[in-house]
Amino acid sequence: MSTTRSPIVDIHTHVYTPSYVELLKSRSTIPYIRSSSPPSESLRLMILPAEETESTSWGRPVGAEYYDIHEKIKFMDTHSIDISVISLANPWLDWVPKDEAARAAQKINDEVNGECGKFPGRLFAFGTLPLSGGAEVIAREIARLKGLAYMRGVILGTTGLGKGLDDPELLPIFQCLQDAKLLVFLHPHYGLPGSVWGEKAGDYGHVLPLALGFPLETTIAVTRMILSGVFEKTPGLEMILAHSGGTLPFLAGRIESCIEHDAHLKAEGRLGPGRKTVWDVLRRNIYLDAVVYNEVGLKAAIQASGEERVMFGTDHPFFPPLEQQEGKWASVETNFVAIQQALGSSEQARGALGANAVRVLNLA
Amino acid sequence: MSTTRSPIVDIHTHVYTPSYVELLKSRSTIPYIRSSSPPSESLRLMILPAEETESTSWGRPVGAEYYDIHEKIKFMDTHSIDISVISLANPWLDWVPKDEAARAAQKINDEVNGECGKFPGRLFAFGTLPLSGGAEVIAREIARLKGLAYMRGVILGTTGLGKGLDDPELLPIFQCLQDAKLLVFLHPHYGLPGSVWGEKAGDYGHVLPLALGFPLETTIAVTRMILSGVFEKTPGLEMILAHSGGTLPFLAGRIESCIEHDAHLKAEGRLGPGRKTVWDVLRRNIYLDAVVYNEVGLKAAIQASGEERVMFGTDHPFFPPLEQQEGKWASVETNFVAIQQALGSSEQARGALGANAVRVLNLA
Repeated sequence: MSTTRSPIVDIHTHVYTPSYVELLKSRSTIPYIRSSSPPSESLRLMILPAEETESTSWGRPVGAEYYDIHEKIKFMDTHSIDISVISLANPWLDWVPKDEAARAAQKINDEVNGECGKFPGRLFAFGTLPLSGGAEVIAREIARLKGLAYMRGVILGTTGLGKGLDDPELLPIFQCLQDAKLLVFLHPHYGLPGSVWGEKAGDYGHVLPLALGFPLETTIAVTRMILSGVFEKTPGLEMILAHSGGTLPFLAGRIESCIEHDAHLKAEGRLGPGRKTVWDVLRRNIYLDAVVYNEVGLKAAIQASGEERVMFGTDHPFFPPLEQQEGKWASVETNFVAIQQALGSSEQARGALGANAVRVLNLA
Repeated sequence: MSTTRSPIVDIHTHVYTPSYVELLKSRSTIPYIRSSSPPSESLRLMILPAEETESTSWGRPVGAEYYDIHEKIKFMDTHSIDISVISLANPWLDWVPKDEAARAAQKINDEVNGECGKFPGRLFAFGTLPLSGGAEVIAREIARLKGLAYMRGVILGTTGLGKGLDDPELLPIFQCLQDAKLLVFLHPHYGLPGSVWGEKAGDYGHVLPLALGFPLETTIAVTRMILSGVFEKTPGLEMILAHSGGTLPFLAGRIESCIEHDAHLKAEGRLGPGRKTVWDVLRRNIYLDAVVYNEVGLKAAIQASGEERVMFGTDHPFFPPLEQQEGKWASVETNFVAIQQALGSSEQARGALGANAVRVLNLA
C-alpha cells in the first residue's frame, strides 16, 4: 500500500469460495452451478428461476474471477485498490438444510478468512450467517466470527429468516451483531415479483431486475426495518447499504411525510417525540456504499447520510466490460468519477475512497 | 393573481368531479364509493383491495375537498397558490366497460374544463383518457381535448391499455399526444404486489404502499418506456412524472450502467450511438414535479433534469394534516421549504414555484 496517499478501499466486492462453488455444484435445483452445454471449462451459475432456460443466457458464466483470490488481487492492482473487504456473493446460505447450516457457514467463513490471510493488510471480509440453522446456531457463528482475524461484519440478504428484516424473531440476531460490533452489509438478491416487469421484460436483458429490482428490494427491506422499530431496539446496530441505499436517500423525505401523515401510526401512539426518523437512522446507523454510478445519486447519498458515511465499492466480479478482457473496468471507473465529481479531490473524497472504511471497519 | 411576484403554480392537484363520484357510487366492486357505516354525511372511497376490510380504515373518507371546486380555491388561497392544473384522481377510468368509455371520459373532461371556466386564469387541467375504449375512441377524445379551453395535457396511469406503457399498442396514442402537443402527467396508482411488504405491513398503516409503492411503480413504468424505445419513436412526447420521477433521478446512473453492460442488448445491436440515454430522456422529454418532501430528493431531481424542468405540486386533497382543520398543510409547506433549501430565492426558485409551469403548459 502506498504511504503517500490515502488508501482506496473497496467494501462491495464478492467471492464464491471453492467450498461454496462445490456446494452449488452438488445441487440440481436453484441455486446451483453446472457445467456449460456444450461442456467446456466454463461453469454456469443459476441463481434465479428466470435464468433456468435453455438459451445462451442460461445462468451466467462463472470464471476464475469468481473463486480465485489471485484474480481479486489482480483486479485490485489494475484499479489501484489497496484494500478489499470481500463478501460471499448472493444467494448466500438461506437455502441450506437446517442441520447443515452451521457447518456450511463455518467452512465458508474459515475459507474466506483464510483467503484474507494470504494477503495480510489487503483483504478483510464480511462473514456469512447460517440463517437456516436457527437462532442458537446463528449466535454461535457470530461469536466465532469475532475470533476470526479478518472478519469485520456480516453480509445479509433481505429475507432474514424467511419473513424479511422486520421479523421479530430476527431481533435477537440484530442485538447479537450489535453487541459483537459486527456491521451488517445489507445486500439485495431477490428483486421484485416478475409481474412488475411486464410481458416485454425479456427484450431488455437483465436491465430491469438488476437496475431496479435490486435497489428497490433494498429500499423496501430497510424501510420495513425502520418502521418495525429495529433501530430503536438496537440503537448501536450499524449497517452498510448496498448501492447507496437502493433509493433510500431519494425517498427518505417522502417516507417521513407519509409516516407523519399516517392516521394508523398516530392512533397507535407511534408518532411521538421518541421516534427515530429515517434521517436519524441514515445519520447514526447507516453507511452507504458509493456504488451508484453517477454523481446525482451519490450527492443525494452524501447529503442524506453524511460524507463521512459513504464508502467506495466496485461490485466485482459483476459488471465486467462486455468486450475488452484486460485493463480498467468502465463500471468501476464510473464510480471513481462520480466520487470525483461529487467531492472533488477534497478530504471528503479521500474519506469516500477509503478513509471512511478504514475508520469504521478498523482496517488499520 | 399578484402582479408583483412570479406566480405559484400547483401542477399536481386532484379532483373527483361530481359525475365521477356518481359513477363510483353506482358500483359495488373496486373502485367504488359507499356511504360510511354507520351512515353519516361522509363517503368512503375504496380503490385498492387492501382497503376493502371491515375496519376504521375501510377505504378513505371523501369530503368536499375531493369534489367541490370551491374547496380547491380555498386551499389555493390558504397556500398563496395562484394557479392549479387539476387532474382527476386515480384510479381514473381504466375499468369502465368499453362501450361506456367514450361517454364517461367526455362527461368528466367537460366537467373538469367547466370547473376551470368558473375561475378563469386560476384553473387549468389535465384530461382523462377513455383507455378501455380502444385506440379510435382514445384518439377522438385527444382531438376533442385540444378544443377544450383549459386542457393542457392528460393524466395517465402506469397500466396503459392493460399491459404497461411499453405496450406497442400504445405507441399510436403517444404519437397522437405528441402531435396534439398535450403533455402526459404520469401518475402511479397500483403500487407493487402486496407480497413485497411482508406480513407486518398492516402495522405500518399506509406508509409502505404510499411512500414506496407509488414512486417505485412510476420508476418501473417510465424505465420500461425508455427501454422499449418510446422516446426514440416519439421524440416530441413530453411527460411530467409524479413525485419527482419516483426514484428515476437517483437510479438513472445505475440504469445506464446496467444497459451499457447488458450482453443481450449488445447482441441485439441496441447499444449504438443512436440510443437515447436515460439522461437524454430526463433532459428532453421529462419534467419532474417537486413533490418529494425534502431537498435531498429535490436537488437530485434538479440535477438530473434541469432546474427549468421542475414544477411545484401539492398532491391535494391527499395528505391533509391529521389534526388541525384550518390553516396551512404541513405536506405542502414541506415542499415549499424543499424548493427554498434547494434553490434559495433565486430565479430558479421562481421557475420551480411556477414560471416553469407557466412556460411549459402555456398558462398565460
